[in-house]
Amino acid sequence: MRYSFRNDYSEGAHPRLLEALARTNLEQTVGYGLDGYCDAAREKIRSAIGRADLDVHFLVGGTQANTIVIAAALRPHQAVIAAQTGHVNVHETGAIEATGHKVVAMPGENGKLTPAQVQAAVDSHTDEHMVQPKLVYISQSTEIGTVYSLKELEALRSCCDRNGLLLYIDGARLACALAAQGNDVTLSDLARLSDAFSIGGTKCGALFGEAVVLRTHIIRADFRYFIKQRGGMLAKGRLLGVQFSELFEGGLYEELGAHANRMAMLLRSAFAAEGIPMLTDSPTNQQFPILPNRIKTALEQNYEFEIWEARGNGTTVVRFVTSWATPEDAVRCLIGELHRLCAGN
Amino acid sequence: MRYSFRNDYSEGAHPRLLEALARTNLEQTVGYGLDGYCDAAREKIRSAIGRADLDVHFLVGGTQANTIVIAAALRPHQAVIAAQTGHVNVHETGAIEATGHKVVAMPGENGKLTPAQVQAAVDSHTDEHMVQPKLVYISQSTEIGTVYSLKELEALRSCCDRNGLLLYIDGARLACALAAQGNDVTLSDLARLSDAFSIGGTKCGALFGEAVVLRTHIIRADFRYFIKQRGGMLAKGRLLGVQFSELFEGGLYEELGAHANRMAMLLRSAFAAEGIPMLTDSPTNQQFPILPNRIKTALEQNYEFEIWEARGNGTTVVRFVTSWATPEDAVRCLIGELHRLCAGN
Amino acid sequence: MRYSFRNDYSEGAHPRLLEALARTNLEQTVGYGLDGYCDAAREKIRSAIGRADLDVHFLVGGTQANTIVIAAALRPHQAVIAAQTGHVNVHETGAIEATGHKVVAMPGENGKLTPAQVQAAVDSHTDEHMVQPKLVYISQSTEIGTVYSLKELEALRSCCDRNGLLLYIDGARLACALAAQGNDVTLSDLARLSDAFSIGGTKCGALFGEAVVLRTHIIRADFRYFIKQRGGMLAKGRLLGVQFSELFEGGLYEELGAHANRMAMLLRSAFAAEGIPMLTDSPTNQQFPILPNRIKTALEQNYEFEIWEARGNGTTVVRFVTSWATPEDAVRCLIGELHRLCAGN
Amino acid sequence: MRYSFRNDYSEGAHPRLLEALARTNLEQTVGYGLDGYCDAAREKIRSAIGRADLDVHFLVGGTQANTIVIAAALRPHQAVIAAQTGHVNVHETGAIEATGHKVVAMPGENGKLTPAQVQAAVDSHTDEHMVQPKLVYISQSTEIGTVYSLKELEALRSCCDRNGLLLYIDGARLACALAAQGNDVTLSDLARLSDAFSIGGTKCGALFGEAVVLRTHIIRADFRYFIKQRGGMLAKGRLLGVQFSELFEGGLYEELGAHANRMAMLLRSAFAAEGIPMLTDSPTNQQFPILPNRIKTALEQNYEFEIWEARGNGTTVVRFVTSWATPEDAVRCLIGELHRLCAGN
Repeated sequence: MRYSFRNDYSEGAHPRLLEALARTNLEQTVGYGLDGYCDAAREKIRSAIGRADLDVHFLVGGTQANTIVIAAALRPHQAVIAAQTGHVNVHETGAIEATGHKVVAMPGENGKLTPAQVQAAVDSHTDEHMVQPKLVYISQSTEIGTVYSLKELEALRSCCDRNGLLLYIDGARLACALAAQGNDVTLSDLARLSDAFSIGGTKCGALFGEAVVLRTHIIRADFRYFIKQRGGMLAKGRLLGVQFSELFEGGLYEELGAHANRMAMLLRSAFAAEGIPMLTDSPTNQQFPILPNRIKTALEQNYEFEIWEARGNGTTVVRFVTSWATPEDAVRCLIGELHRLCAGN
Repeated sequence: MRYSFRNDYSEGAHPRLLEALARTNLEQTVGYGLDGYCDAAREKIRSAIGRADLDVHFLVGGTQANTIVIAAALRPHQAVIAAQTGHVNVHETGAIEATGHKVVAMPGENGKLTPAQVQAAVDSHTDEHMVQPKLVYISQSTEIGTVYSLKELEALRSCCDRNGLLLYIDGARLACALAAQGNDVTLSDLARLSDAFSIGGTKCGALFGEAVVLRTHIIRADFRYFIKQRGGMLAKGRLLGVQFSELFEGGLYEELGAHANRMAMLLRSAFAAEGIPMLTDSPTNQQFPILPNRIKTALEQNYEFEIWEARGNGTTVVRFVTSWATPEDAVRCLIGELHRLCAGN
Repeated sequence: MRYSFRNDYSEGAHPRLLEALARTNLEQTVGYGLDGYCDAAREKIRSAIGRADLDVHFLVGGTQANTIVIAAALRPHQAVIAAQTGHVNVHETGAIEATGHKVVAMPGENGKLTPAQVQAAVDSHTDEHMVQPKLVYISQSTEIGTVYSLKELEALRSCCDRNGLLLYIDGARLACALAAQGNDVTLSDLARLSDAFSIGGTKCGALFGEAVVLRTHIIRADFRYFIKQRGGMLAKGRLLGVQFSELFEGGLYEELGAHANRMAMLLRSAFAAEGIPMLTDSPTNQQFPILPNRIKTALEQNYEFEIWEARGNGTTVVRFVTSWATPEDAVRCLIGELHRLCAGN
Repeated sequence: MRYSFRNDYSEGAHPRLLEALARTNLEQTVGYGLDGYCDAAREKIRSAIGRADLDVHFLVGGTQANTIVIAAALRPHQAVIAAQTGHVNVHETGAIEATGHKVVAMPGENGKLTPAQVQAAVDSHTDEHMVQPKLVYISQSTEIGTVYSLKELEALRSCCDRNGLLLYIDGARLACALAAQGNDVTLSDLARLSDAFSIGGTKCGALFGEAVVLRTHIIRADFRYFIKQRGGMLAKGRLLGVQFSELFEGGLYEELGAHANRMAMLLRSAFAAEGIPMLTDSPTNQQFPILPNRIKTALEQNYEFEIWEARGNGTTVVRFVTSWATPEDAVRCLIGELHRLCAGN
């Protein structure tokens, strides 16, 4: 049986969450997220952010979160600006377009949108014969593991303000971004600088679940209608409340992100030690070594990982993903095997 | 703390399902429903139906199931025929319309569509200035607890065949329908007579989850794209596989439905014994007594239940829902209290 | 060749409009409704209304007008309230649903929505599990020829205000409503009492064209984007400006409505004289006699008209429509033939 | 008054069409394109193509034509492949996305999609987490005036066949493509190689109107429902029939295209004679000279034309468009002025 570094949702839930679910299993609660566990989780999240004035909703998955926030934010003629690599642009089967909105894709730099690119997208849409860009979508951490700095986020926010744009931050892997070495962006910054952002649970210890935090009125208004209409209202909504309540108790959420990052940094150092270049400068739980095909093939005997991009020159970009559940032993074994393979080169 | 008969999703999961989730929690599997647990659950469902040639997919919730099946089945100009009381017509926040399709609502009889009403809907849509009715939506059991007989389903199927219509059966409460006294409709009948149907887990012992069973090509083709596009693809899809695998092991699914029905029949008999009329002739887990307001108010002290419809004449229709989790003790207590209240009348 | 009373768009344009199109044919103008003819027509319409603060746009057809106004007015979870007989409910192939919005159909009285029915629609939609009714759609004159009085419109407006609803008035046959005997609703009233209304040209002397008049901000904002996105932006937009400029010069618009009504009243009187009952109390250009089948069949030899509803009792409701183009001779001939047929009964 | 080369829809209709409209104005016909004039026009178009087995429908505008054909062709998860410059990608305010479909934009070469780019688009969409490319959209002539050769079209068709794709050709400026020097693609080729194509009238002598020619079943089925649902069904549909009947009588359609091209070639030669480079190698009615800013500014005194792209180096790409209505005198005057300006350089 090969150990899988394919993604960060290969296992179930962190034991603390599972225990909480078992402990509360036979209690009766009202449905649809209106129960006490959801209320408690909302309070803990607001408290972690340091603001009482935000709406917090819980959804099952990331595509749901992105689609529902965007559907709530935009009028029909308005469009999303995203990096070419943005999850909403490539990996959601046109979910945004299925709600009627175009995604205006810009090239991005290291998986990140820049203010200059946002401005270019706005400037090239001049009149009513084209869509009207209205919402900027970014991910923290990004789809290739990079992280926006506070300065970068502030510059994006300024650009949005100058152009009357909304800013939405997809935090499917937010725990790893928050815990990344060198990160200077807090939950409070995210709430201040975005109009809405999500806090991913699925990839950080939950069975499933994304919290969305809403600051701006147009998105908040009647948001529960949008959840229900898009199939995102969980009957036993307390399952989300119970889990997020655990994640935001005693710093578990960032702790799990920190563990994933530590495992990733072990890997990163090992690749560096062997002289293997990386595709991106990722301080988070996704690492993209550019492996000689011989090494890649040999590693596949005992490990699963994703093929990112075959290159013509005898190398292949692959993706290793660590998570809250990755045992250090598995990482050490991989590193050992890598070293043997490289030595035998 | 009042005991709640408000609905059949007030608790978590049946212990067997929760144990299975805990037992498999740290195993690594691939995501998105392509794991071995989902495969096993699919096989068990096919086996329970007695056919190997059906597609089975797992979704988180009922609105998702309905929306995705219907979006996959229809071209943009085509419409759904449903009873006025149908879940897709009133209780899904326009989810069907949000995919672009009109719901043509017909009055229904006892919550059930009749072939004559389906024919009337077809006949009144004569040309391209109106939508084209194409899919008939029914629920088994219905939103008011009634159950289609085999003969009624066969008559609907014939009507659909004569008019080139698809038939989709929403089985959110299918377990109770299958276990209802007098029911003569099997899973095999459902598969034979419908183009697609769902098997509800949320209301029958699962944390969440609906299986959809697809027979007809146009709905099956590329169905996974539809799941993803509509936000229904669960990253840790094995959670659905593990749960449905338990439900379809050793007859648990129908057993849970049977328990819920037994509790409901105890209630029904008690209401009858006190001379309280019922709104519908329901052999399943939803019961609709028409209570004198005095009784209603008194019962609300210790019990939660849904107000269905206030009537002008001093009575109120209320809904009591039982489930796999309803303890017989709770029902006996309620019955005792009802008897005391009525005796003291 | 049978003379057709089938509808009010059997001919081309009123000669004055056609001449204006010919006269301006080779002038060069900018496209998309930004030309001087459109500006002039907008001014004339504003002047006829007596307000300078309204937006006026020109569209090709009525379904376009209804769809675009409604798409601009609503957020995705919001719904339209309309009479069962409303054009948007039955005769636009689900165009409203294709933009994602449910139409909540109420029975209506004489083809008209009442405040009580609007209130009932609002009251039965209680929470986020259902759509949120937000816009009331009515037609003036209605689909069965009746006309709202000023008092009725004011009562609807009050009901809308109490419930935070928008009011949109489809004026596809507005000329006939304005010119109807007993009508007390002016263009100025329509602008004051509605959030948006349309002024139909197609059925009143134009080759095609509907003006939409917008008062309320949420509908006005970026409206040209909506026109373009829904395929309603005519390249040679001046064709609409030229035509509406003629219609609103020298009172032509109401004059054409008055002619159509006069022809309809001749018919109505003739039916009454022969003791033939009418389905509706219509003072406008649609008349619905309930004809004995013998008479109906005999009239079909020389005249075209629409079969509205076959009744079991040997009678058929049919629709006769007059227009700006109906010659009095044709009406006189029909009346003569009717008289002979009834006399020979 | 400046003469406008801004576009090919600055004037009304070719006199022959206007006369036909006037001549038939007071005839009564049935509505919605079911009249004899539409039938006759359909026959003439089928005859010009040389096939009797095609469906022909008439729509008012190009965005309508594109949207309706694509909405009819695709299931919700399917996407359009288009050149970055494609009209559906940039100039229709997201009309395609508003029907739920993503446009996958590829760079194009000279405004044309290549089979290699189509293949790349298909190959990069590998599974149900991404949209499924299903329809290739191209324009003939393209948005920058270029024309696909027969060989290029055949190669695209082969690529489509290999990948199960539909091919739709937007012929908004088809007359100019057909009449272009060196063109080897006939109407018959278009019908054979595409699944659907349009024949533009708006930019070739009609007041408005696009014919769409449908060959493939999935697009043809119930197409009139799609026309109505998307607001494209003209009440007085005969206006389209009358105009297309004229355009396809005696070769008028291609003759008008040929005139526009001749005027464009005069311009093109004049620019060449003055040593002014062109952005594209266009044999049709759109010409894109790269003008020194001094010349551009001087020409703007007496002529209107579109600014295409300001370049940093003291030049500006502009667009001159000729049409059936462009008088040779206007072109000669422009050429004279250009020559004087260049001589005085």
